[in-house]
Amino acid sequence: MRLSISKEETLIRQQRFFEKIQQNELDCAILFSPIDIFYLTGFQFHPTERPIAFYIDPEQKTHLFVPYLEHEHAEDFASLINFVHSYPEYPGLKHPMEYFKEELVRAGFQGKKVGVDSLGYGSPSGYRGPTVDQLLDAQEFQSIKYIVPELRAVKSAAEIELINESCRWGNLAHRLLQKYSKPGLSELEITSRASTEATMAMIETLGADYKPHGETAFALFRGQIGEMSAYPHAVTQNAVLKTGDTLVTASGGSVWGYKSELERTMFVQEVSKEQTTYFQYMYEAQEVAFQHIKPGKPTSYVEEAVQKYFTENKITHLTRHHTGHAIGLLFHESPFFDLGDHTIMEPGMVFTVEPGIYVQGVGGFRHSDTILVTEDGMEMLTYYPRDLESMICY
Amino acid sequence: MRLSISKEETLIRQQRFFEKIQQNELDCAILFSPIDIFYLTGFQFHPTERPIAFYIDPEQKTHLFVPYLEHEHAEDFASLINFVHSYPEYPGLKHPMEYFKEELVRAGFQGKKVGVDSLGYGSPSGYRGPTVDQLLDAQEFQSIKYIVPELRAVKSAAEIELINESCRWGNLAHRLLQKYSKPGLSELEITSRASTEATMAMIETLGADYKPHGETAFALFRGQIGEMSAYPHAVTQNAVLKTGDTLVTASGGSVWGYKSELERTMFVQEVSKEQTTYFQYMYEAQEVAFQHIKPGKPTSYVEEAVQKYFTENKITHLTRHHTGHAIGLLFHESPFFDLGDHTIMEPGMVFTVEPGIYVQGVGGFRHSDTILVTEDGMEMLTYYPRDLESMICY
Repeated sequence: MRLSISKEETLIRQQRFFEKIQQNELDCAILFSPIDIFYLTGFQFHPTERPIAFYIDPEQKTHLFVPYLEHEHAEDFASLINFVHSYPEYPGLKHPMEYFKEELVRAGFQGKKVGVDSLGYGSPSGYRGPTVDQLLDAQEFQSIKYIVPELRAVKSAAEIELINESCRWGNLAHRLLQKYSKPGLSELEITSRASTEATMAMIETLGADYKPHGETAFALFRGQIGEMSAYPHAVTQNAVLKTGDTLVTASGGSVWGYKSELERTMFVQEVSKEQTTYFQYMYEAQEVAFQHIKPGKPTSYVEEAVQKYFTENKITHLTRHHTGHAIGLLFHESPFFDLGDHTIMEPGMVFTVEPGIYVQGVGGFRHSDTILVTEDGMEMLTYYPRDLESMICY
Repeated sequence: MRLSISKEETLIRQQRFFEKIQQNELDCAILFSPIDIFYLTGFQFHPTERPIAFYIDPEQKTHLFVPYLEHEHAEDFASLINFVHSYPEYPGLKHPMEYFKEELVRAGFQGKKVGVDSLGYGSPSGYRGPTVDQLLDAQEFQSIKYIVPELRAVKSAAEIELINESCRWGNLAHRLLQKYSKPGLSELEITSRASTEATMAMIETLGADYKPHGETAFALFRGQIGEMSAYPHAVTQNAVLKTGDTLVTASGGSVWGYKSELERTMFVQEVSKEQTTYFQYMYEAQEVAFQHIKPGKPTSYVEEAVQKYFTENKITHLTRHHTGHAIGLLFHESPFFDLGDHTIMEPGMVFTVEPGIYVQGVGGFRHSDTILVTEDGMEMLTYYPRDLESMICY
């Protein structure tokens, strides 16, 4: 199988983007978002203090604007870029945005209608700089922040293959995590061992063509161990497992940047009646969600059904978050299975399904599976067992 | 040793922040930056589509505004917070920023001078929402984006201890990386083995008090192997090592979020005359940088000296980036050793020192060490050998 997105597919992405630009009656556009730039060009880079931008000029030529240290990298690895421009360094004697302004003027942006995903480069890594509307005398600036994320929401056959590949290695990492989850071992120890062995197998299997563009195979707990599992997004606390602990896991692995999510509620050696009760609610809530995923329906339809289930069972007070989110080049993408999100589900959309229950003093209960919306419902992409019996770590 | 920042130190940070707010003649302030919120509260969370904010009201009370799924987590783990407020979910039936507006009005923000680090919550993970100036009828909004990053630039004794601890484990991971770097092995294999073993040793040594708040011990190549090492920020290409390859590495490990950086230029089994020549230039350039790090001088002083060295040796065309950056809770922070950065060096600042040379077809040459600015110069915090003889992997 192919472990990357082809140049032909990248071209289709660019064409769709250009169409959207024209539908918005814009002459040209600028993007700063690293993930959207990767989507449209295949150019993967480490975002730092140094601004990087992609732009398309009024003649429909594509440009990358990068720091000098990325110049050859961009020339050699970006697809379908007509021009790569670079500036010496940030901060530099002359600010990168001054060079950027010159390039934009040269490319004919003055007096034009310009789409921008944000008004300037944003980075927490010590970057400071002016916004593009301070630099450029355009006729109009229009936000196009959501154009590429919306294109990204419906996945192609090639993208689904990459997500499927991610699921395979997340599954292996999770099997190992479960195997190594024993009382007396620390979460980091178990995580580290499971993730490394799965990564090794992944590398040996996929060979040199495999480019992760993200994390290789991993499985972990994020601190959701024992009572700490009642915090839906606990951070790693380096806890030691003990008999009877509820565990909430997460696993996955990036393939050409594409991600999947597999999470399970597991129990160390034994499970109490109370844990069993909450587990069953969570299990059934996930079933309810699966049954309501259908193309043509709004994503809120799924959340409404899950919340109805929780209300009927009088456990709404134990819930803490919506049922799921889209996933692809980022772990969390829009749309969401949420009361306030009315995006219509379409075949090709990929979501996590993960209604959760959190009981202080007992633990958290959440499975997460990655699913594909199909022509007539959904297909499960993750395939780890979900039943209680399979969730006990011996 | 203590593996975290104390509540007392967190209080000092908050007090300094409040002083800056008052010096700017502001009545109150809002922060959205996750890293700045962690710095001021010790509350570590996974940023997602759900907005989180810290604010201080005109009565100097501190607040955290979080999604419901983080409510108990914030109550239990954030330091010195007077009030935790939460909203049900994002997107939700009512937008989180509507709840936020109500809380801000209740806390007395209307008609006041408000400092903000940005005008709204920013996240690539599918978040959409209004800016605070659309919500609130304030007398004035003033950007305070750089106040906390500037406080973060000068490290306390406790922070330096955490960075020192990070250096220890980066050093071990790097030793293992060098040991396992053999022809015929893939970069991910070597990386994975070295990182896991160093992490295991780290966990066993530090015990349950150790909270990474970031990556545990790691050592890797980021694709800088053989000819690919000539890309200063290559991304992992999963290459297989061969005899004579130039390798550029990176290692570190987070301790309570604090990071260090150790990078080395190494050679697989043998080193050519050409590689030796470039290595020596790089080595000497780093020496020049070390000699010019002195409190009271601007950071540009270091870069000027390094560039002078490159010019004198006629190798400026082989350079691609500035000499270094500050490091702490983020890998890259301001200030920079750069021609355009005139920040005055102060004792307690921590920087990487990493002038580099990049030769197409040959490789990249860069060591990076983490240093502390002291009362009379600098102290090296990383302590891995730097000489050519020690850099050959047998």
